[in-house]
Amino acid sequence: MAGNSFGALFRVTTFGESHGPAIGCVVDGCPPGIALAADDFSADLARRATGRTRHTSARREDDAIEILSGVYEGVTTGTPIALLVRNTDARSKDYERIATQFRPGHADYTYWQKYGVRDPRGGGRSSARETTMRVAAAVIAKKWLAARHGVRVRGFLAQIGEVVPRGHDWSAVDANPFSWPDALQVGELEAYMDALRKSGDSVGARVTVVAEGVPPGWGEPVYGKLDAELAAAMMSINAAKGVQVGAGFASIVQPGSVHRDVMTPEGFLSNHAGGILGGISTGQDVVVSVAFKPTSSLRLPVQGVDVDGNAVEVVTTGRHDPCVGIRAAPICEAMLALVLMDQALRHRAQCGDVGAVSPRIPARVPGDGHG
Amino acid sequence: MAGNSFGALFRVTTFGESHGPAIGCVVDGCPPGIALAADDFSADLARRATGRTRHTSARREDDAIEILSGVYEGVTTGTPIALLVRNTDARSKDYERIATQFRPGHADYTYWQKYGVRDPRGGGRSSARETTMRVAAAVIAKKWLAARHGVRVRGFLAQIGEVVPRGHDWSAVDANPFSWPDALQVGELEAYMDALRKSGDSVGARVTVVAEGVPPGWGEPVYGKLDAELAAAMMSINAAKGVQVGAGFASIVQPGSVHRDVMTPEGFLSNHAGGILGGISTGQDVVVSVAFKPTSSLRLPVQGVDVDGNAVEVVTTGRHDPCVGIRAAPICEAMLALVLMDQALRHRAQCGDVGAVSPRIPARVPGDGHG
Amino acid sequence: MAGNSFGALFRVTTFGESHGPAIGCVVDGCPPGIALAADDFSADLARRATGRTRHTSARREDDAIEILSGVYEGVTTGTPIALLVRNTDARSKDYERIATQFRPGHADYTYWQKYGVRDPRGGGRSSARETTMRVAAAVIAKKWLAARHGVRVRGFLAQIGEVVPRGHDWSAVDANPFSWPDALQVGELEAYMDALRKSGDSVGARVTVVAEGVPPGWGEPVYGKLDAELAAAMMSINAAKGVQVGAGFASIVQPGSVHRDVMTPEGFLSNHAGGILGGISTGQDVVVSVAFKPTSSLRLPVQGVDVDGNAVEVVTTGRHDPCVGIRAAPICEAMLALVLMDQALRHRAQCGDVGAVSPRIPARVPGDGHG
Amino acid sequence: MAGNSFGALFRVTTFGESHGPAIGCVVDGCPPGIALAADDFSADLARRATGRTRHTSARREDDAIEILSGVYEGVTTGTPIALLVRNTDARSKDYERIATQFRPGHADYTYWQKYGVRDPRGGGRSSARETTMRVAAAVIAKKWLAARHGVRVRGFLAQIGEVVPRGHDWSAVDANPFSWPDALQVGELEAYMDALRKSGDSVGARVTVVAEGVPPGWGEPVYGKLDAELAAAMMSINAAKGVQVGAGFASIVQPGSVHRDVMTPEGFLSNHAGGILGGISTGQDVVVSVAFKPTSSLRLPVQGVDVDGNAVEVVTTGRHDPCVGIRAAPICEAMLALVLMDQALRHRAQCGDVGAVSPRIPARVPGDGHG
Repeated sequence: MAGNSFGALFRVTTFGESHGPAIGCVVDGCPPGIALAADDFSADLARRATGRTRHTSARREDDAIEILSGVYEGVTTGTPIALLVRNTDARSKDYERIATQFRPGHADYTYWQKYGVRDPRGGGRSSARETTMRVAAAVIAKKWLAARHGVRVRGFLAQIGEVVPRGHDWSAVDANPFSWPDALQVGELEAYMDALRKSGDSVGARVTVVAEGVPPGWGEPVYGKLDAELAAAMMSINAAKGVQVGAGFASIVQPGSVHRDVMTPEGFLSNHAGGILGGISTGQDVVVSVAFKPTSSLRLPVQGVDVDGNAVEVVTTGRHDPCVGIRAAPICEAMLALVLMDQALRHRAQCGDVGAVSPRIPARVPGDGHG
Repeated sequence: MAGNSFGALFRVTTFGESHGPAIGCVVDGCPPGIALAADDFSADLARRATGRTRHTSARREDDAIEILSGVYEGVTTGTPIALLVRNTDARSKDYERIATQFRPGHADYTYWQKYGVRDPRGGGRSSARETTMRVAAAVIAKKWLAARHGVRVRGFLAQIGEVVPRGHDWSAVDANPFSWPDALQVGELEAYMDALRKSGDSVGARVTVVAEGVPPGWGEPVYGKLDAELAAAMMSINAAKGVQVGAGFASIVQPGSVHRDVMTPEGFLSNHAGGILGGISTGQDVVVSVAFKPTSSLRLPVQGVDVDGNAVEVVTTGRHDPCVGIRAAPICEAMLALVLMDQALRHRAQCGDVGAVSPRIPARVPGDGHG
Repeated sequence: MAGNSFGALFRVTTFGESHGPAIGCVVDGCPPGIALAADDFSADLARRATGRTRHTSARREDDAIEILSGVYEGVTTGTPIALLVRNTDARSKDYERIATQFRPGHADYTYWQKYGVRDPRGGGRSSARETTMRVAAAVIAKKWLAARHGVRVRGFLAQIGEVVPRGHDWSAVDANPFSWPDALQVGELEAYMDALRKSGDSVGARVTVVAEGVPPGWGEPVYGKLDAELAAAMMSINAAKGVQVGAGFASIVQPGSVHRDVMTPEGFLSNHAGGILGGISTGQDVVVSVAFKPTSSLRLPVQGVDVDGNAVEVVTTGRHDPCVGIRAAPICEAMLALVLMDQALRHRAQCGDVGAVSPRIPARVPGDGHG
Repeated sequence: MAGNSFGALFRVTTFGESHGPAIGCVVDGCPPGIALAADDFSADLARRATGRTRHTSARREDDAIEILSGVYEGVTTGTPIALLVRNTDARSKDYERIATQFRPGHADYTYWQKYGVRDPRGGGRSSARETTMRVAAAVIAKKWLAARHGVRVRGFLAQIGEVVPRGHDWSAVDANPFSWPDALQVGELEAYMDALRKSGDSVGARVTVVAEGVPPGWGEPVYGKLDAELAAAMMSINAAKGVQVGAGFASIVQPGSVHRDVMTPEGFLSNHAGGILGGISTGQDVVVSVAFKPTSSLRLPVQGVDVDGNAVEVVTTGRHDPCVGIRAAPICEAMLALVLMDQALRHRAQCGDVGAVSPRIPARVPGDGHG
């Protein structure tokens, strides 16, 4: 419980409302001895932030992390690491009207029903602004995973509306504002997004994240399965409506003779499993895809209900993304990294006495949907 | 941690291997005063069991539950409820050969890598036999949810290979061995399955489960979101590769103006959200779909590796299901019921002081993929 | 795990080092609708703070709480409440020498052995400064317990060195700097403390805390017993070395015919049990006593070891309390309130369906050691 | 929550009522590769069992453990280990009368108030019979602690009523029915107990347990402190009313100059701390003492209340121990072992990257109260 914490051993607790004084997190259980400075957070936070291109919300998030604890002379000490970001450029008056309305497709009504009270400014706690701290916490996890295990976590936009990548080139992903893996399509996407924004409507997206270098053995059967925790992690992201691992929903129509990944002493011959069997990593790439719904914050009017139960017309005038999926890749990466970090610590807790296990089958091929 | 427990307050811990002496579970945190007897488990366990039709594994599971604790004079006492099923009809010699082989698509290799030791008999702990206890524990949850909140949980097979239902009739679901919602297609499915079994191959499936009557307000933002926990719950089931809520992956191509479910004082006009917004139930039907991969246990030979690292040919001769999804509906229902039960208790813990909240918007329409 | 969180449902996570930028906490799982403002924290924090009298450390803690989240228009919203206190008057240079020394009786050596790195400034994370946030978090719990259940939590110093109270008057407790329950002894204690401070030595103390108005039924047998969690809560306070409930260690020499508290329809005739039987509250006063060791930070030299393994003479020149117990009453109250709050929520989660249970035996007498 | 589980990573869940069909436990998170057989449990269970001497309850507990899961070919596999003991020699008719009465000093009334229903047979879940499974689970922990870290856990009776040991000899402890460390006093104790039994009354006791060989660094500050978890562990045992570590309550009257354990490169010169500083083990012996109240089950009549609220005379005629502390040493050892095991796994999870840390100060002297 305590719904605002994530992870069992590498445990992240986030707090803060979109338009409150600050957002922040506490990372407990972090291994000591990791070099960490405020600058380490800049790159990933900038990738997630709004206000960088015309394709995302105009709210300018200049998220400067302050490290409040847990770091001494530039290294983690094993005590809780608290990170803080003061909220700036929060125009709460944009939201005055919606304080008395429930916006369709939003959490307004459900928070109201659950708590009997809500902070309506910018969506309050239900705002995607909360994901800033996921990205921040995962910076620490990524550093440890890379240094200790050579794990690399990255992601890309695998679909936007009806558009899917025609090619896959990791080097293209960071070179455009869509985390799109095919440079040749960027112009087409720009036009697509411009038209969408002009229409006042929005569209969904799919993000794929990949972890390379994960050793076999991570994951806790049966309820703490690696894929089960990844599913929860991804579905906890705002606007997520579906999660799949490896072949995912496409495996429904695969014959078993195709789906099962052939093993040879030289390596696996395919990776339909997405790097996980029986809830435990196989040593192949871990591949996860997440479906994001279209944002419901539109300037197109819609029927709604107000807090007195009356029918009202709802028009959202705040600053919003026409496709929330565009900024979701670093968030999905963050959740992937957090799950792996936590499972890595849990694995060595229970199985630290198990030495190198033979035979070890090499990972050779990327997974379904990998790119 | 402690990967074999599920739920925070209504907490289920399962144990047991497929061919060990017994399987069982402990249900801790159960409300006192629920009438409970061994007979209550029979119906759902029979729906899950193999050996009932020619379309499932020939292993005959006659799962008689023994209640070891937590019930006195026919009602739950609030102390842990332990349930036990002795394993019978376990033909371990079927598995002797695979004790030294890693079957492609199975957890053999990953358990070996994680623990350095494994129980190979019938898949040991990774066998779907473990799900028996999920179904058993959920019987208690279903009773309380129905009596206390009028919640009804049920499910059906929504796809098998390429075949999808042409109609939807709940009354058909229990009248055929496939949990199929269209009685007119049953003959077609029988033929499909017979051909599949004859071919020696297998196929995937999709199961949809629905909870009606869930009040608004259940779910713990942000990491304990109702949909996040449902995603973990479903993905923890053997062979699950994908989970979606409401419109799920289909929401990628929906415009926001379509996806957002219009609210009126008389009710919601659609349920693309699948009954969950911001991680909290809306009062509409909760709708979840799960993708199951085709079983990898085939009598068709495949390349594999043995424990000494040599290439081997693997042929599986045990008793297996050509489509594991056929028996998965009661398991998915169980996980849905367990999540709802746990969230219901968590909700009243935190928000028990919040009285009836106005306005309450009626649920009127079933969700996407509902049937 | 995640050793810096306390409580299962009303969950407090603290962070911060004695001489770092700030200390703070996140309170997750708090019921919505509680009126809360920064001023609410002042009284209890002042009771705990150093620098108020000559009998405590000269460090001046002016702990101004900033509420960062979870409160909107003056009431809690059910989302995490983050509280922050900036560290001021932190003279780290006092501690420069001890950065390379392990002080006997302190956590210096053990943190070093555990983490391989430590923040030596003012004891870093092991400083009693951390308890500030326990007191702050408990302010919220006390408000809810009082408003919702009429529970009152208070405490007093029950022994200092060899000195024990001759009388007990609750009204005296807040009227002297020792939380001492007998006004006539205050002069004697002042002289005792002055002599102690002059000697350069320190002494231990015992604090007793009492909760009145706790209804019967709180506590989770068997490992989540109310007294088990109180024991952990109290022993987690810096310098605590022992905990007892009701008659505690004195019950060793009581005959059973004396110890067992006689029940009559008019009420219990004694309270040797300290308000707890079988781990569940009886409805009588909950009474807990805690033993605090003498502080080890003395200006009297002592043999120690430095980080290179050499013998050194250790002299502590920072600002310290000659008797840490003097300020411990509000901290023990805080831990009592946090445990009760958490158990209250857990009780209604599981047993919210259980109505008023007859017969109800009145509480009539305070407990052993109550005063 | 889920009050019937103990431990975070090495997690024990117990179930069962005194006179129900069976008691049992599930041990989750156990490292793989530990040799384990049913015989391993016999010795410790016999030490805890009643019916062995005239000084304990006449109920004959022949507790034969059945291993239901988690062990394959004689070694643990890393999956949950379920242990089962069928209840025998349960004379429920002894308890018929008390089904309608609340016995003073017992959990009858509090269970009734909490749950609105209770199993009165032999105390139901509140019976000390539950501790059988703690002892069983700890057998596994003790094996691992000894093999992996050279830790030895043992205990003795340190006081019974007014009687305290005059000498301390570990070899004497197992040679008498009282776990008494001075062989010369055994005759005196026999007479004492015989007189007590004849009187119909009972008396309290104190048990001390010691863990030798614990390396420095175990324990999770600040709420998961080693001593905090030991306090909870011990206080969760039936009839426990107090817990102390090292000098414990005696430290109240110690000057700080005496209490602080001097450190030299050759070793600590005392162990008033009981092996724990700042919640983390120092490498010295961990020493914990527990106060047990006198049993309230006496054949001496006492006033009580029945379920209809009437005054009644209560006479307990079942089979009971005149001093429950006599059998408590193996239970306290068990809880000490379980806490150490869990903390050991947690330590290597977080700090597994920290290598050998210099300087290492040898443990040289046993702790206060050690013997």
